[in-house]
Amino acid sequence: MKTWLNVPADHDFSIYNLPFGIYSMEGVAPRAGIAIGDYVVDLQRCQNMGMFSDLLAPTMNVFKRKTLNRFIRKGKEITSGVRKIIQDELCKEDSFLRDETLSLLTPRDQVKMHLPVRVGDYTDFYSSREHATNVGAMFRDPDNALLPNWLHIPVGYHGRASSIIPSGKSIRRPQGQTMPKDAEQPVFGPSKRLDFELEVACVIGKNSKLGTSVSTEDAEDYIFGLVLFNDWSARDIQKWEYVPLGPFLGKNFASSISPWIVPLEALEHLKVGGYDQKDPEPLPYLKYEGDKNYDIELEVAIKTEDGSETTISRSNYKHLYWTMVQQLAHHTVNGCNLRVGDMLASGTISAPDESGYGSMLELSWAGSKEIPLSNGETRKFIEDGDTVIMRGFGNKDGKRVGFGEVRTKVLPSK
Amino acid sequence: MKTWLNVPADHDFSIYNLPFGIYSMEGVAPRAGIAIGDYVVDLQRCQNMGMFSDLLAPTMNVFKRKTLNRFIRKGKEITSGVRKIIQDELCKEDSFLRDETLSLLTPRDQVKMHLPVRVGDYTDFYSSREHATNVGAMFRDPDNALLPNWLHIPVGYHGRASSIIPSGKSIRRPQGQTMPKDAEQPVFGPSKRLDFELEVACVIGKNSKLGTSVSTEDAEDYIFGLVLFNDWSARDIQKWEYVPLGPFLGKNFASSISPWIVPLEALEHLKVGGYDQKDPEPLPYLKYEGDKNYDIELEVAIKTEDGSETTISRSNYKHLYWTMVQQLAHHTVNGCNLRVGDMLASGTISAPDESGYGSMLELSWAGSKEIPLSNGETRKFIEDGDTVIMRGFGNKDGKRVGFGEVRTKVLPSK
Repeated sequence: MKTWLNVPADHDFSIYNLPFGIYSMEGVAPRAGIAIGDYVVDLQRCQNMGMFSDLLAPTMNVFKRKTLNRFIRKGKEITSGVRKIIQDELCKEDSFLRDETLSLLTPRDQVKMHLPVRVGDYTDFYSSREHATNVGAMFRDPDNALLPNWLHIPVGYHGRASSIIPSGKSIRRPQGQTMPKDAEQPVFGPSKRLDFELEVACVIGKNSKLGTSVSTEDAEDYIFGLVLFNDWSARDIQKWEYVPLGPFLGKNFASSISPWIVPLEALEHLKVGGYDQKDPEPLPYLKYEGDKNYDIELEVAIKTEDGSETTISRSNYKHLYWTMVQQLAHHTVNGCNLRVGDMLASGTISAPDESGYGSMLELSWAGSKEIPLSNGETRKFIEDGDTVIMRGFGNKDGKRVGFGEVRTKVLPSK
Repeated sequence: MKTWLNVPADHDFSIYNLPFGIYSMEGVAPRAGIAIGDYVVDLQRCQNMGMFSDLLAPTMNVFKRKTLNRFIRKGKEITSGVRKIIQDELCKEDSFLRDETLSLLTPRDQVKMHLPVRVGDYTDFYSSREHATNVGAMFRDPDNALLPNWLHIPVGYHGRASSIIPSGKSIRRPQGQTMPKDAEQPVFGPSKRLDFELEVACVIGKNSKLGTSVSTEDAEDYIFGLVLFNDWSARDIQKWEYVPLGPFLGKNFASSISPWIVPLEALEHLKVGGYDQKDPEPLPYLKYEGDKNYDIELEVAIKTEDGSETTISRSNYKHLYWTMVQQLAHHTVNGCNLRVGDMLASGTISAPDESGYGSMLELSWAGSKEIPLSNGETRKFIEDGDTVIMRGFGNKDGKRVGFGEVRTKVLPSK
């Protein structure tokens, strides 16, 4: 497959990718687009040209919207069909897309990206064995770091949907209540242990019905695509609040996502086998057939105010112990319903090796070690003015498919 | 204040109440209504008659909608104004509402009630000291039943918005993974410890901005009104999953609400003082002035398939240790944003006395006691075929304001 557009071979948004997003620009209200190289394809204008007339009635307004929910709800036959048509046009020498007078392609540096979906519910899993072991060793007992349920259950909890923000939007350091070591009373103030969590989230593409469950076999039908997910965490707030009902204010001040949803079908060639789940074996509803992990390289960088950038972690999506299809089957086994636009985040993805730990908590081992930056500074946690950047991509058989990035600057508390 | 309509003095939906809901009926698409006695006022038709012309442009479509979100977003000046106009018309002898040819009033037994709002995020608090003490004594340590953070923090966690359902909709007993006592391996099957939780939720009426917080003083401006809330719980699933990240599948299969939102202003005369918070004193951001609790009687009944009904608990909203304004100030102190339609549930409201415990877990003391029903049966937890009914009302100075009920039947697992 080869496009007439100039797309460098190492570009995340190759002809094999074609992710969906919502963008706007001067004079162009928010609408759905597909990214290709350094351009975005205006799907609304393509529809106006009649390019999707076999799939969508010309009057059916699914693209000129603030979110992709209505488009995604049409089902994969439609969404994959639209993507295939754009893919074909990008390879066809005499395509409409090449006609500059039609303005079907816009340079991406001219557009503003928005949240791609309205998120009904956001669930955060905890599916990396390395991360769970690291956190358990630090906070509880190094000899029994994994809790008894961890190898039986893809542990998860509900997060906050309202504070999910797109890449590029800054956050403020959260304030809150913490209990300093050896103190008698809690204190109030800006978090001193602001952290990121390197995650990947799936975006639900099909409603499931309340009272019914989705099997591991059917789970992929319910997943539209993936995004990078930075689950911001204030470790000191989290530590004081989280027993017994879980994280709340330590997490819900913000989660940042990459704005382009990579469709699941674009990741098919990156599939790899998962962990050997023999000791113990999961219950039957959690078993699955075939390769359901993905070989997606992930990295985290810190950019300081002086402009210097340091990559501080290199991990891979394939390090997840519990796969997405297991997470989804578990989530619905009690009859809980999923809705289009919901996000299921993976949990922090830490590599077995410390160079690939997915949070400052683990990289600095709860603040006991300093992480060197390229400008000579060091970090134990994230400081005001820092920008955290996450990137992710897979590359196999010459087909590179990537997520772009999620980038968030931290501003001081108000 | 006296209406020309025949409303019995002990009716929840008195002229002092006038709650908002979404209803439909044969030939009438979902729309906003106000309940009065055994009737519902059609707000769309009232608008068509020009009754709200000083408040809303005639073409402004806020009532003929599936949820109240757009109406509520207009702000209290508009929502209270609409309510006041209906209140005046219900008292005015020559009101349009009396003209039967206009069909502005419909008997409530002819309508179907829907979820009144689209819930963006649902948060569940844990604010009854009696409930937290009972649960702590049963699950952890009777001598240190309250965890160290409880008297400092209105503990809360995020629940599931997708599975919030209106009164009248049945639920299926959830299936899931549990770890039987003394077992080596978890097992899968229908929950054996299905439970309700007696709660009241507030519905957010105003967006707050990400990165900003709402003070206890301003909190009421952000609350549109209250509903009864049954936070269904599967105790055996919850027990095995909840450490360390909190309840998930043990809760997210369903939460039931009463369909009429009682506006905060209708509850003003029921305000009472809260608990003395001196030992310890809360941090400054959690302090508040004036009466912020409400004297609202709450009760739970079980109706069995033979039609017999037994009231098994009588509690009161005033037993909450942490008030709604404190919950809201805490929720936003880290900059977490609230959106119109969000729900903040109180947590199980247990009275100090065991006749007013707010869950079967507490009433049966973790299954060690049997609760007698009027038909001679007993219950430790909720059985298939049981209908759980919650009711709530306040009555002061001859002004009764109530919630109606939330009623949910439990069907067997599929």
